[in-house]
Amino acid sequence: MIFIGERINTGFKDIKAAVANKDADVLKSWAVKQTKAGATYLDVNLGAVSNKPEDLCWMIEQVQAASDLPISIDTNKPSMLKEAVPLCKKPPLINSTTAVDEKMEDMFPIVAEAGASIIGLVMDEEGSPKSADKRVENAGKLLAKAMEFGINPEQLFLDPIVMPLKYMQEQAQEILAAANQFKLFSDPPPHIVCGLSNISNGTTQKKLINRTFAVMLVANGLDAVICDVTDEDLVDALLTAELVMNKQIYADSYIEAFRS
Amino acid sequence: MIFIGERINTGFKDIKAAVANKDADVLKSWAVKQTKAGATYLDVNLGAVSNKPEDLCWMIEQVQAASDLPISIDTNKPSMLKEAVPLCKKPPLINSTTAVDEKMEDMFPIVAEAGASIIGLVMDEEGSPKSADKRVENAGKLLAKAMEFGINPEQLFLDPIVMPLKYMQEQAQEILAAANQFKLFSDPPPHIVCGLSNISNGTTQKKLINRTFAVMLVANGLDAVICDVTDEDLVDALLTAELVMNKQIYADSYIEAFRS
Repeated sequence: MIFIGERINTGFKDIKAAVANKDADVLKSWAVKQTKAGATYLDVNLGAVSNKPEDLCWMIEQVQAASDLPISIDTNKPSMLKEAVPLCKKPPLINSTTAVDEKMEDMFPIVAEAGASIIGLVMDEEGSPKSADKRVENAGKLLAKAMEFGINPEQLFLDPIVMPLKYMQEQAQEILAAANQFKLFSDPPPHIVCGLSNISNGTTQKKLINRTFAVMLVANGLDAVICDVTDEDLVDALLTAELVMNKQIYADSYIEAFRS
Repeated sequence: MIFIGERINTGFKDIKAAVANKDADVLKSWAVKQTKAGATYLDVNLGAVSNKPEDLCWMIEQVQAASDLPISIDTNKPSMLKEAVPLCKKPPLINSTTAVDEKMEDMFPIVAEAGASIIGLVMDEEGSPKSADKRVENAGKLLAKAMEFGINPEQLFLDPIVMPLKYMQEQAQEILAAANQFKLFSDPPPHIVCGLSNISNGTTQKKLINRTFAVMLVANGLDAVICDVTDEDLVDALLTAELVMNKQIYADSYIEAFRS
């Protein structure tokens, strides 16, 4: 499982304040905490707090000073990426593009040049799809266009777009069905990722709903997740789901081994 | 979700002793505890402790004195069933038959006459199948033969036969794939059930593995489970999995509502 630590995001108050005050310690502390928890990438999101590339670059530099993990650069602005990507010590994951031609044509050359990876949201000009079929159609567009730019399937992380269970309950099954199709696109297949916390928006049982849906997605091919990697119950559930899918060999100490 | 409470089984030491000593209180206490926890059926298993139908009948009577729930009669012996079925105040679930012709021809008339339901293990003369395909083939035999006897798909609970993850790790995916096919057999489909605890035999993380696998099975059509219904984390995970599958409408109080 590829764990993308979601926490260094100005959507969280402490990160927003830290960026405003250039308080590096807050970012470093979350970088260390998520690294210790088992993250594979650390997502860095400047959000709407600033539109200056140097603020995003400052965030990335603080994170890289505290952790050796590669960065997931959470912006869809080419102007930001042109500054941020060259700073990355390891090939980053770019978060994200949509299946809109113009957007892909902006983003994919940056990915190809840097040997980076990219998250492809299966939305198009019409917005977020409601059906599994439309998700699969947009995923196909993403994969085909990526390959035109010399990007391998393994560099593409398809995101079926998770919708809140509370408000769009019928969507969960469409998402599961879409993920199940994504893994048939190529061999090796593209990665399948999601922004997990959307599923539990507005609910009273956020962590339970997050981990239950995540486990179901693993049964349908999910191999990467943007999530709270410090949620041990979630991580344990995902490690166990990967055992069930025979992606990791069972050992009595499988959880301790991950933590150490 | 149909929860079949597994606890009144002489495989547990307290039940074995209670049956030997005709100590009704132990059975009644487990009947009440599982009923309160949300069981749909109470499984009653005399096991190898005795081959006397009157001992099984005594167990059923104690359980029915303490709970209004229907009984899951856990025996594949027609001689036992002929005594036990008429005692049941509500149509029982018979646990179980295999897909062996002789066995089905013994069991299905009893089911049909009593308006009961039955668990069909997808094993045949050759034993437990290793592949999803063989499981589906045996499930088809069970369904076809049941219908010959006038038993509806809704009275048949197909069990894909769960194997221990620790020793046969590759089997879990075959089981998931088989369940996924079972639900396509008919409309309405047969139920899909499993004896859950087998999955975690010999492991260090029994409850975590049980609930993770159960959630993945729900994503593949499972709607019934023989399990420890007093394991609240398991029940919560299954209730949540049914929300994701849109089988229950989301409400903020969905867990409390089940418990009350």
